[in-house]
Amino acid sequence: MTVSTEGHTVKRYDQQLGNLRSLVLEMGGLVEDQITRAVQALQDEDLVAAREVVARDHVVNGFDVRADEEVVNLLALRQPVGSDLRLILSMAKTVTDLERIGDEAEKIARMTARMYDGTNIPHAKLLRDVASMAKLAVAMLHGALDALARMDVATALAIAKGDDELDGEFQSSLRRLATFMMEDPRTIGHAIDAIFIIKALERIGDHSKNIAEYVVYLVKGKDVRHVKKEQLTMDDLDS
Amino acid sequence: MTVSTEGHTVKRYDQQLGNLRSLVLEMGGLVEDQITRAVQALQDEDLVAAREVVARDHVVNGFDVRADEEVVNLLALRQPVGSDLRLILSMAKTVTDLERIGDEAEKIARMTARMYDGTNIPHAKLLRDVASMAKLAVAMLHGALDALARMDVATALAIAKGDDELDGEFQSSLRRLATFMMEDPRTIGHAIDAIFIIKALERIGDHSKNIAEYVVYLVKGKDVRHVKKEQLTMDDLDS
Repeated sequence: MTVSTEGHTVKRYDQQLGNLRSLVLEMGGLVEDQITRAVQALQDEDLVAAREVVARDHVVNGFDVRADEEVVNLLALRQPVGSDLRLILSMAKTVTDLERIGDEAEKIARMTARMYDGTNIPHAKLLRDVASMAKLAVAMLHGALDALARMDVATALAIAKGDDELDGEFQSSLRRLATFMMEDPRTIGHAIDAIFIIKALERIGDHSKNIAEYVVYLVKGKDVRHVKKEQLTMDDLDS
Repeated sequence: MTVSTEGHTVKRYDQQLGNLRSLVLEMGGLVEDQITRAVQALQDEDLVAAREVVARDHVVNGFDVRADEEVVNLLALRQPVGSDLRLILSMAKTVTDLERIGDEAEKIARMTARMYDGTNIPHAKLLRDVASMAKLAVAMLHGALDALARMDVATALAIAKGDDELDGEFQSSLRRLATFMMEDPRTIGHAIDAIFIIKALERIGDHSKNIAEYVVYLVKGKDVRHVKKEQLTMDDLDS
């Protein structure tokens, strides 16, 4: 924290840092809601809801721009060091990943709108893995945001350690889709759409992992992004 | 630039800023080389070369970590404002996109290693669009890096305006792959790999577009990421 003889300056600065964090968490909530709604629209075959998700992506982008402006302001006016600087930089990186998660939610919604806008609608079996994969992806994002809100390194490290379950579901879903296509080549068009939907969910897992890594950096000051994390413990982070 | 009465402090600061920019451009060159090699390995059906690309991704990640450390150092020690702050923030963002382009190159190489590691190798027609798409993707990245090196906003804006050509190629390649799969369902497994390869190339275009947007921000101070750019002119950037 900046040392200042003027109490109100410190207070205002702390407030600004808090505002940035709130802004990022609010953006996180919105993005989580976008994924949930996109997947719900897919399951309900609800074109209107899908288009609402697409239309709402500009709100996500608005958060992206506002957060970035706030980052520039804080860096320029407050010249932070130490843990304050880490907070600001982690928020800047988190925002980038949140914006891209928002894009993936938008893609799912676009795909939904395309698939159900006509008479040739996809066979339900093509999309049977989407619900469970979406649940895993949303849980990872929710966990990462929760770790950020509570500065909880243990949870963050657990999420950063991997998305093995989501990756495993992705691979087996992909194999099932390939089988469906071989059995019935008429499903190929929709199956390719389904591949992009599960790919979007898999990427949401990757982005959530990134956010968890920034939480570790924020609290512990250690950059664990390109470190093998299988064996990494909380003790390693303190050394 | 920080105003200082001590000439050598200013000089050292300028040097550090220059070093960061060189580091990012060097990383850009490496990443460009990774894409080119990955695509070449695919075309030559060269397993050894593909594995070399995979192995070299850790060098890309090393640049990512070093550049980020340099960013933190510069922000903490030099407390930059104005155009210096913009330079540092654009470099930080560029590095993130370069690292992810590196990941896409690695994915192409992994896919190559998998496809040619056995007797059931893919039919050449499945990969016929890869060369032209790779050429477009590399041209976009090269252009964005060149714009960064020369602080050339006109080129950056042209690249930021879109990857319509690459997107168009991606869509038609996807349609061709769907047709191949329908005509000969035995190609489905390899065709799915081919889909992920062209998807990786399409994403490299997206990341290159992002980098071009940071160049506009760096030189003009305008955040054009979520702005409709079709009608955007150089004059708009000066207003």
